[in-house]
Amino acid sequence: MEYQYAKRMAQLKASEIRELLKITEMPDIISFAGGLPAPELFPVEEIIEASRCVLQEDGRSALQYSTTEGYAPLRAWIADRVNKTRGTSLDEDNILITNGSQQALDLSGKVFLDEGDTVLCECPTYLAAISAFRAYGCRFNEVPTDDSGMIPEALEEILKSTGNVKLIYTIPDFQNPTGRSWSLERRRRLYELAVKYQVVVIEDDPYGELRFEGERLPAVKSFDQSGCVFYSGTFSKVFCPGYRIGWVAGDKEAIKKYVLVKQGTDLQCNTLAQREIVKWLELYDIDKHIEKLRAVYKKRRDITVSVMETAFPENVTFTRPQGGLFTWAVLPEYIDARELLKKSLERKVAFVPGGSFFPNGGHENTMRLNFSNMPEDRLADGLGRLGQVMLAF
Amino acid sequence: MEYQYAKRMAQLKASEIRELLKITEMPDIISFAGGLPAPELFPVEEIIEASRCVLQEDGRSALQYSTTEGYAPLRAWIADRVNKTRGTSLDEDNILITNGSQQALDLSGKVFLDEGDTVLCECPTYLAAISAFRAYGCRFNEVPTDDSGMIPEALEEILKSTGNVKLIYTIPDFQNPTGRSWSLERRRRLYELAVKYQVVVIEDDPYGELRFEGERLPAVKSFDQSGCVFYSGTFSKVFCPGYRIGWVAGDKEAIKKYVLVKQGTDLQCNTLAQREIVKWLELYDIDKHIEKLRAVYKKRRDITVSVMETAFPENVTFTRPQGGLFTWAVLPEYIDARELLKKSLERKVAFVPGGSFFPNGGHENTMRLNFSNMPEDRLADGLGRLGQVMLAF
Repeated sequence: MEYQYAKRMAQLKASEIRELLKITEMPDIISFAGGLPAPELFPVEEIIEASRCVLQEDGRSALQYSTTEGYAPLRAWIADRVNKTRGTSLDEDNILITNGSQQALDLSGKVFLDEGDTVLCECPTYLAAISAFRAYGCRFNEVPTDDSGMIPEALEEILKSTGNVKLIYTIPDFQNPTGRSWSLERRRRLYELAVKYQVVVIEDDPYGELRFEGERLPAVKSFDQSGCVFYSGTFSKVFCPGYRIGWVAGDKEAIKKYVLVKQGTDLQCNTLAQREIVKWLELYDIDKHIEKLRAVYKKRRDITVSVMETAFPENVTFTRPQGGLFTWAVLPEYIDARELLKKSLERKVAFVPGGSFFPNGGHENTMRLNFSNMPEDRLADGLGRLGQVMLAF
Repeated sequence: MEYQYAKRMAQLKASEIRELLKITEMPDIISFAGGLPAPELFPVEEIIEASRCVLQEDGRSALQYSTTEGYAPLRAWIADRVNKTRGTSLDEDNILITNGSQQALDLSGKVFLDEGDTVLCECPTYLAAISAFRAYGCRFNEVPTDDSGMIPEALEEILKSTGNVKLIYTIPDFQNPTGRSWSLERRRRLYELAVKYQVVVIEDDPYGELRFEGERLPAVKSFDQSGCVFYSGTFSKVFCPGYRIGWVAGDKEAIKKYVLVKQGTDLQCNTLAQREIVKWLELYDIDKHIEKLRAVYKKRRDITVSVMETAFPENVTFTRPQGGLFTWAVLPEYIDARELLKKSLERKVAFVPGGSFFPNGGHENTMRLNFSNMPEDRLADGLGRLGQVMLAF
């Protein structure tokens, strides 16, 4: 049959990263694609214990339907944690549990976006946020962004001159794809402009806990007196992504709207997963666990940067992130990173060409490199080979 | 701040059932609301074992990101099972794993529906399907339905005279809310009309495995040569709802579109949940498990019907379902089931007033009664009290 798909389907294309993940499943590939945490750091034995406890103590209710909002003790824990680490003033009723923070983006689109609305984003921005919002028929306006965040004057100019701006989407800490973080001053300015122009900010924070050095900065949400900031986070990077547990935190009345939308979308998140995470948090020390992650990822970041400095040609620039999982390289303009990828796959090295991170196209001379998912020797080996491919291009 | 919500938000209201679930959490209420399976039948000890095996054998990959399509052995098992039980010819590439079958509905809306499109449904229909589709701005046209399914002549009349019909939504087996099932002839006619008018059928089958008596009928999907039928199912009713694992089965190229949409929506389902279900299916006998469920639910259906026959006033009619979880009662037209609910809550008995199951309103003299979630003595006690409330109304 000739399907009559919805109009939105014409806009959607396969995520280059998800397709690449299929290639990178081949064991001989050294992959800087994907954004996978290091599985050797998953606390498997502890999870076996947490799972056993939950099922033995209260299995029947852990396996049953539960509320759309999410498991109350988990929501309370998240509110408390974000308050401590990011300077916010949340309580459990500010929190909705979502299927990873990706669903927080989808629900934000569903709650706020009509066809033809505009979303402002960093330049570049997280590619799966583009997919999430684009499904609701929005346009994107890329705000000029430097190493400290969106440039406030440019942001204000766009806010003044653009109709139907509904959302400003940002990842202020160790951004995906660039690894850059916003300065304190820029966070404050973003909040002021959002209030001045009455626009909702979606602050996506999957990586904030993974700071290797430098001072921890407050979330944009910490300035929020007006309710215009919705803050999302996830257990995917500090615990395990397979659980698909994240959250969105916002104004209580607005969160009720999110709850309504989630009801029709998938009723609720996995009950058992939520209970197991709470049990794990009770039995074990998440701060110690995160310390371990930070130490390993910092080492990988150090090696990445130092190999790139020696092995990459001088006309390639790249970021030196203070945390998170990614670095971002800019090649000379005449090099198309998609072509470079073909050559580097011949040498069994994969990365993500950067073009897809720009919703309006261009910037084909960029690339994202993930450093969290590879042991140190393979990191160095792969980046060395990649440097050789660049030099020979 | 004054939020500018998307237009769709004006249409959404809290699900009466989800709100009722909050009341029914009070332990002294006898509740026929909700559609909860019996938690005493969850195979808790077996799940502890399955979980331990998965985590010990392959914990790191069970806790990592995985593909959007879902865990391949689970997709293969589902294809095989549906082929055996419902007469289809599926293989693993026809299947996308979803967060319960609710997400199969949401994704179907996202793939097919534009604002102003029409969805045809049974009269009445599953209320959370209304919420799922309504989020995409569709209208509903309720097709006249009797005890054997939608009336084909009425369906054809509507298909002829209505513009932009994109989906026909149906639950042919032990429908929610009525408990009714479609005859073989009606299933065939539905398929023929869908092909003739080139409209997609969403066949939702959460309850098909829970047949207590009578002959098992093939799914509408079993007739499908053209790819117009999308069939969804779930582990919520035959295993545990807390896992949030369901699926949608359809034409392979169309399923790729669903996969794209799911990528932007929430990346993938819980990896561990999928692996645990597969392990449980390997270690234990699902047919034996389902036999046990059928025996218990049949007994509860028997008691429900026999108490209703004696305790309900003669002017109340109700269905005698051959399977599933629900029966449906029609009160005299002058009784508003919402008013009746207030009275019955005074006697500590809850049910769902039927009006919400009609997308275009009306039918306030109807009610849905769930019989799966209550031990026999409380079932009989509650229905007896409900009969008294009706007689006194």
